[in-house]
Amino acid sequence: MAERRPSRAVHVIPVTGLPMFKPGDDLAAALATAMQAQEFFPEPGDVLVVAQKIVSKVEGRAVRLDGVTVSKPALQLAETTGKHPAMAELILRESATVMRARPGLIITRHKLGHVAANAGIDASNVESPDGETVLLWPLDPDASARHLRANLEARFGMQIAVIISDSLGRAWRMGTIGTAIGASGVNPLTDRRGETDLFGRVLQATLVARADELAAAASLVIGEAAEATPVAIIRGASYIRSEAEGIASTLRPLQEDLFT
Amino acid sequence: MAERRPSRAVHVIPVTGLPMFKPGDDLAAALATAMQAQEFFPEPGDVLVVAQKIVSKVEGRAVRLDGVTVSKPALQLAETTGKHPAMAELILRESATVMRARPGLIITRHKLGHVAANAGIDASNVESPDGETVLLWPLDPDASARHLRANLEARFGMQIAVIISDSLGRAWRMGTIGTAIGASGVNPLTDRRGETDLFGRVLQATLVARADELAAAASLVIGEAAEATPVAIIRGASYIRSEAEGIASTLRPLQEDLFT
Repeated sequence: MAERRPSRAVHVIPVTGLPMFKPGDDLAAALATAMQAQEFFPEPGDVLVVAQKIVSKVEGRAVRLDGVTVSKPALQLAETTGKHPAMAELILRESATVMRARPGLIITRHKLGHVAANAGIDASNVESPDGETVLLWPLDPDASARHLRANLEARFGMQIAVIISDSLGRAWRMGTIGTAIGASGVNPLTDRRGETDLFGRVLQATLVARADELAAAASLVIGEAAEATPVAIIRGASYIRSEAEGIASTLRPLQEDLFT
Repeated sequence: MAERRPSRAVHVIPVTGLPMFKPGDDLAAALATAMQAQEFFPEPGDVLVVAQKIVSKVEGRAVRLDGVTVSKPALQLAETTGKHPAMAELILRESATVMRARPGLIITRHKLGHVAANAGIDASNVESPDGETVLLWPLDPDASARHLRANLEARFGMQIAVIISDSLGRAWRMGTIGTAIGASGVNPLTDRRGETDLFGRVLQATLVARADELAAAASLVIGEAAEATPVAIIRGASYIRSEAEGIASTLRPLQEDLFT
């Protein structure tokens, strides 16, 4: 098959056979075990895209709603929106600012800088034997990506990149799209300004959100519902290697925000 | 290789060897020829993602700036933003409303409903032997996708989907991302509401912008600058087949827009 394909194809490969994760689990070890069981190993330059959910789980970011003390602002937000008061409280705690609140909808700027509904807090796919449980984002998804990358690079002896993704909405488009909320080993932006086009003209405005494109591509195999495929490997994609950079450069600076 | 990979991998394959397109060219015929030359053929369910640029070119949407009559509102917009007056004129003609205008920046809602910088008008990769030429979006990208799909389906005798993509910016994130501006054969949204998660809970809010995820994935091989790879085939992705639907359902209805 491969020799019949044009060069530079990109492959998005689900990592299957992963366990249900619990707080404190070693994600890198579990990934290595699952891949080994399939005789499937990373290659240099692979991008591992990991759903935020399992990172949050191993980092102990699940919160039982009935243990949350609800503040007055959260009660008001819950009244405005019809959200569970404890959920409103957690959203406020996770957020820098509430951008829009309407019945059924809370959009905030997360303390990490991302604009997201419900501050990215997720109520699905969280085990809750004793009362409703929700899952907050990792405290520092870039750090989570960095640790996972270091561990996997040491384990496999090659350079790879790690992206932590979640499904985020957009201002003017319906539906969610896989989006990078943490990254390591990849410069999240590919700056093509200064390159020339086919006719030798210098490109003016081509800054490509490569980490977000990688996260979106991974969503084609990462399951949202009962599929339980929280990790994908992207092979063959071009991106700029960066060990220092996290996702921050993808966040539009507040002073350039025209739509808040 | 293939048998060592977990199942359900998605492949993003560039279609190379395409010619430089001119107005009136038969895109479907050119694609078939290029694929034939590589002994590479579509498979049922493949999604063909085509850069807006080449669709616009074959549909004759290139405009010479020096032939544009500039109106008074366009002159004012050019003054505010520092854009070329003819460019400002074309942006106004292509747009329903100007959303933001600042030095160096015009964001509008395109007549087709998409929010984009410069109404999606592109000044790169357009041949201009006699004066500066820019490229407008196809008049009806869904119709372009529909025609291309019908032609390719007849030619190859199988069901495929076609997406027309462009690189669009986002309100709160830097960089552009491949985004669907036309579609045929694929329902642009996958509605997972009502499905259950791993623990049997019903998903509340999982509407996935599948066409946009496919367009973003295609961007990993579609060149922006001198690469000249304007078409990708995505193989193995799951999506809902729809012959009737275009991209419209992906556009958030105006009455639900909280950020204009």
